[in-house]
Amino acid sequence: MGAPPVKTAEPRVDAARLERRLGELAKIGRDARGGLSRFAFTPAHAEACLLVADWMRAAGLRPFLDPAGNLTGLDRDDAPAIAAGSHLDTVPMGGRLDGALGVVAAVECAQAIREHGVRLRHPLAVLAFADEEGNTFGVGCLTSRALVGDLSPNRMAAIRDAEGRSLADRVAAWACPLPRGEPARVAAFVELHIEQGPRLDAEGLDLAAATAIAGISRTTVTFIGAANHAGTTPMAMRRDALWGASALVLEVRRLALATAGEAVGTVGRVEAEPGSTNVVPGKALVRVELRSGRETLLETLRAGVEAAARRLAADYGLEAIVDPWDHAPAVPLHPGLHAIALEAAASRGLRAISMPSWAGHDAKVLAPHVPTALLFVPSVGGISHAPDEHTAPSHLAAGAQVLLDVLCRLDDNLNAPGRLG
Amino acid sequence: MGAPPVKTAEPRVDAARLERRLGELAKIGRDARGGLSRFAFTPAHAEACLLVADWMRAAGLRPFLDPAGNLTGLDRDDAPAIAAGSHLDTVPMGGRLDGALGVVAAVECAQAIREHGVRLRHPLAVLAFADEEGNTFGVGCLTSRALVGDLSPNRMAAIRDAEGRSLADRVAAWACPLPRGEPARVAAFVELHIEQGPRLDAEGLDLAAATAIAGISRTTVTFIGAANHAGTTPMAMRRDALWGASALVLEVRRLALATAGEAVGTVGRVEAEPGSTNVVPGKALVRVELRSGRETLLETLRAGVEAAARRLAADYGLEAIVDPWDHAPAVPLHPGLHAIALEAAASRGLRAISMPSWAGHDAKVLAPHVPTALLFVPSVGGISHAPDEHTAPSHLAAGAQVLLDVLCRLDDNLNAPGRLG
Repeated sequence: MGAPPVKTAEPRVDAARLERRLGELAKIGRDARGGLSRFAFTPAHAEACLLVADWMRAAGLRPFLDPAGNLTGLDRDDAPAIAAGSHLDTVPMGGRLDGALGVVAAVECAQAIREHGVRLRHPLAVLAFADEEGNTFGVGCLTSRALVGDLSPNRMAAIRDAEGRSLADRVAAWACPLPRGEPARVAAFVELHIEQGPRLDAEGLDLAAATAIAGISRTTVTFIGAANHAGTTPMAMRRDALWGASALVLEVRRLALATAGEAVGTVGRVEAEPGSTNVVPGKALVRVELRSGRETLLETLRAGVEAAARRLAADYGLEAIVDPWDHAPAVPLHPGLHAIALEAAASRGLRAISMPSWAGHDAKVLAPHVPTALLFVPSVGGISHAPDEHTAPSHLAAGAQVLLDVLCRLDDNLNAPGRLG
Repeated sequence: MGAPPVKTAEPRVDAARLERRLGELAKIGRDARGGLSRFAFTPAHAEACLLVADWMRAAGLRPFLDPAGNLTGLDRDDAPAIAAGSHLDTVPMGGRLDGALGVVAAVECAQAIREHGVRLRHPLAVLAFADEEGNTFGVGCLTSRALVGDLSPNRMAAIRDAEGRSLADRVAAWACPLPRGEPARVAAFVELHIEQGPRLDAEGLDLAAATAIAGISRTTVTFIGAANHAGTTPMAMRRDALWGASALVLEVRRLALATAGEAVGTVGRVEAEPGSTNVVPGKALVRVELRSGRETLLETLRAGVEAAARRLAADYGLEAIVDPWDHAPAVPLHPGLHAIALEAAASRGLRAISMPSWAGHDAKVLAPHVPTALLFVPSVGGISHAPDEHTAPSHLAAGAQVLLDVLCRLDDNLNAPGRLG
């Protein structure tokens, strides 16, 4: 382990080391088109785990794979740990920061704590989840869900990859020469991630602390009219299903805009039938998606879309059928930990805001179980899930520093009377 | 030819014979699903020609096939003829009246004229066109276009059926044992047809005389925005191409409704790309079709759609690309002959109106060459191109009677000083 670390007043992350390590990790899993396609339980994933395990050791952590294949680094295991991390896998043709930033920054925090001689009251864990993007088994956040026990044994056994193998089989067959161990016991979790949206970049901000992970509600609204000859049917006698569908697209927009940033609403597709140029559409399907960090608002919006569908159907002489909503509820993040994150950012002079996370993350899985925080740094142009995903090095370093500060404050506050009690 | 006909004051059609013959013709070309699928130059078409040729002979007409396969019945050929008729082919799974009515009614008129001992000043022709629906060669009104010489020899030679045979080859190979002859010389043409739309039926009317065959303009408007994550992209920063597309659908409706029945506008299809539920559409195609009997109005509407596309693109932060319009101009019908038709209907006590024909017909092909009229009887429920196409027998008889009256008035007026001069 070399010479004992020098104790200093306040640990600071090493921005150059962070940037260098992100660059090294980004060499693993490159695809032919210049992106990263690093999928769980592949040789590239094993290579990434070995590299990060080396860094974990340098940070004074003991690396091992848990039964779900999550790479874990623990300094000690005599109590539930304060944990930080994210995931090591990418989408097809992904970028170098989605997931990787949260892992590399967490290792950097551990190393900074060690190098500055800080002794935390709680054990420290770095979690590098194996399969967040859902490429391998078609299930998002699969291996963090396995960690917290969100999936029943029956459900787990039913989840298979394209070749019919279970998660346990994939992990057992995976050529990743690292020690195996039990899942980390986690007392709190902090994830640093890129925003993957344009807001922080557009508004010149440094950081956001997420208030919640947005819930997602999806449904299909089908308008039924009457298919007719596009010439011989007078306008006044038409029951054109596409009229209702088009008006609903604009109504979803209006309802979402009226929330002033609290929700988004998207229609990604409209399908008119029969779909011929010379036939009045007798049927039109509208695929509606709503997202909000506030569950009650999501409920209000759903009711608003349904009411609009009925009203527009009546206006245009149609019938409207609203399919059952496929609903993933909003997950609130820990308010006390959120406040700590904003304070930490402010004390570093950073321009930070609160906002919901519009996309899902491993933090969404941990949040119902332990105090959880999710921090965002800007994504230039809002670009993500693409090779040109980029964040300025200064923003990466600032995000890692706030992560470190939050871990230290968390160590002081966790299980103490007060906001994290 | 039997006993010489008895001359009476005014020829009347035989409603029972008309109905009976329509029923006989409807037995030829029946498909398994209960519709009529009688395509040009098939054995069913030959059988239909032989049946109609028998009726032509009973009406004192000499039946023959012209070089395009059009069954023609002529009483004499010493001068250009006053002609009536329509087509013998059907769409797949069609009904018993589309085309057939105009042919059978024309034969009925000839027979009534003969039986009532009326001697017309002009030769009389019944035209039973072979391929109006375009099933065989993919070209609508192909054999009436051949009759009037609308297709150049090069174009004619290039038109082939699915097996690569030309029209001349198909007609030559067709086992239809009728005499062959030169195309009829036509001085004027009157077509009786079912409306194929709901208006006459809905308004309790007996007949319409078409003012024009509607022109048809088609284009695709493509809105270009930016495809983005449906969660992380704030509403206010979206450039959702489907917003422009949806607004244009409603604008096409508004523009067409504002013409108060003079035009129709249809969007049969909207295609959003990439078309995923969780991606903001970056591109959306809108297929626009406009129809009007008034060419100037069609032009105004086209300009209106283009202006709306540009305005909506600006409103929603998009780019709009309007493809070149595919334009078939409106074809005006002969005003004098139209007036004669309305007078004939009025003198029979029928409730008749003027309206454009929203669909194409053989009359559209004849109209630029000779005075042409197009008469409509009601289609119950506006249903056509379907097995349950239906018109009340009283309306069929009334339509045939007006056809007969128009032919007689035409005979008096054609080439005389005045409205048909």
